[in-house]
Amino acid sequence: MGAPTDRTRLRRVSEKAAYDRATIDAVLDAMPLAHVGYVMNGAPVVIPTLQWREGDRIYWHGSSASRSLKAGRGMQVCVTVTLTDAMVLARSGLEHSVNHRSVMVFGQAEWITDAAAKARHLQAMIDNLFPGRWPQLRPITDQEIKSTGILSLPLSEASAKIAAHPPGSTDAEEDRAWPVWSGLVPINLTMGAPIPAPDLPEGVTLPAHAANYRFGFKSD
Amino acid sequence: MGAPTDRTRLRRVSEKAAYDRATIDAVLDAMPLAHVGYVMNGAPVVIPTLQWREGDRIYWHGSSASRSLKAGRGMQVCVTVTLTDAMVLARSGLEHSVNHRSVMVFGQAEWITDAAAKARHLQAMIDNLFPGRWPQLRPITDQEIKSTGILSLPLSEASAKIAAHPPGSTDAEEDRAWPVWSGLVPINLTMGAPIPAPDLPEGVTLPAHAANYRFGFKSD
Repeated sequence: MGAPTDRTRLRRVSEKAAYDRATIDAVLDAMPLAHVGYVMNGAPVVIPTLQWREGDRIYWHGSSASRSLKAGRGMQVCVTVTLTDAMVLARSGLEHSVNHRSVMVFGQAEWITDAAAKARHLQAMIDNLFPGRWPQLRPITDQEIKSTGILSLPLSEASAKIAAHPPGSTDAEEDRAWPVWSGLVPINLTMGAPIPAPDLPEGVTLPAHAANYRFGFKSD
Repeated sequence: MGAPTDRTRLRRVSEKAAYDRATIDAVLDAMPLAHVGYVMNGAPVVIPTLQWREGDRIYWHGSSASRSLKAGRGMQVCVTVTLTDAMVLARSGLEHSVNHRSVMVFGQAEWITDAAAKARHLQAMIDNLFPGRWPQLRPITDQEIKSTGILSLPLSEASAKIAAHPPGSTDAEEDRAWPVWSGLVPINLTMGAPIPAPDLPEGVTLPAHAANYRFGFKSD
């Protein structure tokens, strides 16, 4: 592709890698959905799961018996979290893209074994992903803790990629006069009106934590 | 965990695997964001990208020089596409989850080399991901085609997982009387008002394809 053109220079400005924890944490805290990559029998497997962050580590959980969770124990994994912000409609086909913020975390997944530690992390999961609910929930049982596997990864090998092209900016200078509409179509993630269980006990009303639920309600 | 309890039986009903193409295609067509898993130097790498479907295959593209794209050539990959539908607020912590639809596609990624074929697939990309724009765009150049890499995967080894728990349904029978609100908080993905480039040529107005843009506008 030869020497940098206007186009590649532009890309460098609006699509950048970041390694600072504030940027990384902001993405992880705003999007619980993660895609966890394992290697099983030499082949990659990518599993969607919910992650939560506690300080310098991220966590995810599942059944202790889960094949993919067990495969992650002590193994090299890659956890990727992606937020999509806008579709980029450019003047030329190949400059179309999606503005996004993503974080990749690499490392050896640690399996939490201590029952008391597992209980603490499961409370932290609820406090992070479903804030406000923990004190009201039916308490977790020892058997539930036993049958739950929790994996964790430090954020020491994490990086963010931020693509935040301003409207109309991805096209080369010489394409800007092309007579086609160009700009961004924002992608919004919002929460709808909560749908109650049909069998709620009498007197149980919609709490603020459900009425106002949104991703990224994190206090630490 | 011993014999199936009410809880595990319930899970089997509302969280199921599907292998039929109608279910698989519906997920792939509704969500362009994919997470592609490769193995590089023995370790997993999960990269977010946009995928599109043409009949029995999915495709994704990037710079020919891209390290991850080159790593995928002829290699075993796993492409996972996930739609999140609702947060599941249960009576017990461990029954909290997210209703979702996901598809995993496994296989050896094929690298498209023929320039004419690449040109056809890049048009199909625009027709799928940005429908209505192709005829108005600045035509793709030979140099652009050359510097673009396209990978493809057949849908022969694809499966879907659908978690569609009705409100309040994930808890065991004996937990249903617990006095906490339980139900679903729907997750909505919507498009905001398009933001035009500041330097649009005079007379270029917002087209219907941008004003009404949404994912899943697919006709095949």
